[in-house]
Amino acid sequence: MGSLICDISMSLDGFVAGPNATLEQPLGEGGEKLHEWLMATKAFRATHGMTGGEDSADSRLVEEHLRSIGATIMGRHMFSGGAGPWESDPNADAWWGEDPPFHHPVFVLTHHARERVTKRGGTTFTFVTDGVESAAEQARAAAGDRDVQVAGGASAVQQYLAAGLLAALQVHVAPVLLGGGVRLFDRLGDAPPKLELTRVVESPAATHLGYSVVR
Amino acid sequence: MGSLICDISMSLDGFVAGPNATLEQPLGEGGEKLHEWLMATKAFRATHGMTGGEDSADSRLVEEHLRSIGATIMGRHMFSGGAGPWESDPNADAWWGEDPPFHHPVFVLTHHARERVTKRGGTTFTFVTDGVESAAEQARAAAGDRDVQVAGGASAVQQYLAAGLLAALQVHVAPVLLGGGVRLFDRLGDAPPKLELTRVVESPAATHLGYSVVR
Repeated sequence: MGSLICDISMSLDGFVAGPNATLEQPLGEGGEKLHEWLMATKAFRATHGMTGGEDSADSRLVEEHLRSIGATIMGRHMFSGGAGPWESDPNADAWWGEDPPFHHPVFVLTHHARERVTKRGGTTFTFVTDGVESAAEQARAAAGDRDVQVAGGASAVQQYLAAGLLAALQVHVAPVLLGGGVRLFDRLGDAPPKLELTRVVESPAATHLGYSVVR
Repeated sequence: MGSLICDISMSLDGFVAGPNATLEQPLGEGGEKLHEWLMATKAFRATHGMTGGEDSADSRLVEEHLRSIGATIMGRHMFSGGAGPWESDPNADAWWGEDPPFHHPVFVLTHHARERVTKRGGTTFTFVTDGVESAAEQARAAAGDRDVQVAGGASAVQQYLAAGLLAALQVHVAPVLLGGGVRLFDRLGDAPPKLELTRVVESPAATHLGYSVVR
């Protein structure tokens, strides 16, 4: 059975989204700078049905990550944005379109039960109302031998870190200061988990820091 | 004339000191973990009058840094700790002892005028009451061809960053989550400076991220 991991981009000042996020600008002001390294890669573009992009060290890292992941967990905001009673809105998943880039089962943490949604290309959205451990169990079962990623947002990552459920963490540090927004590491409690540095991959666009979480 | 730079250790979650800092534990709970990489180096030990330590990539980085610096700027808390009317206390500099590790002129940002203090080994403490730009000018003049470091604490670094006065930043990311404490990057304002990644040096003990600040 695979591990639960998190692989996420962060500004040097610790933000995973800029200030004043809206439905139209879900990453907040300047937040797109966090993912410039990613958008430039061939591997990311291919997953999103686009050609081109650079076959760089960054791209090989993305490829490796995509190959390793068999299921995704995300918070409700990452599924459908911040506002509105999405559970009664059949279009709430329009955020991810008809052919989402996951191509595997996605588990959405929420307080509102909803029927599973099946999209094109192998992506399903399953709504989990009984907590982070339950989502982890369901996602692990769905992922088979592959790993499960906690994709975000920050709150979901924080819950998994604080609960000691993450086995590894890869933080892509973008060379940018956002000055405000949503912090990745917050509310970790009095005894945050111990880390061990496992790998550093560097490029001008980002520094990729790999850690294992020590249990 | 040299540049104004900052060279500082930070936890992965962005803290330069842990929670509940006191005079006896100035780095807060767990804060010593931020500097484990540094304490282990031969170069750091030598500056503090000790033998031994590792002649590692970390140590060569410290050597390079120490050679490049001709003057230091620090905040008042870094000079004498957080509490008490230090300006009337002739022992307030006991924090740094009779033979401080700087061996060059140090400029202390403060609201309270005080006579310059001369210590052994080339360290002087000059008290600057007219702001960060004045301290930068005085320190640059004292440093000659060498660089000036803003040593800390976080508030001093933030003021220099926000004022656009820093030319370069080297952040030593320790593989640790502190869960709370003093954040390095905070109060940077609406338009934080742009960065460019210039170098990454890695070791199991820390990841050393070098940035130039784009003007």
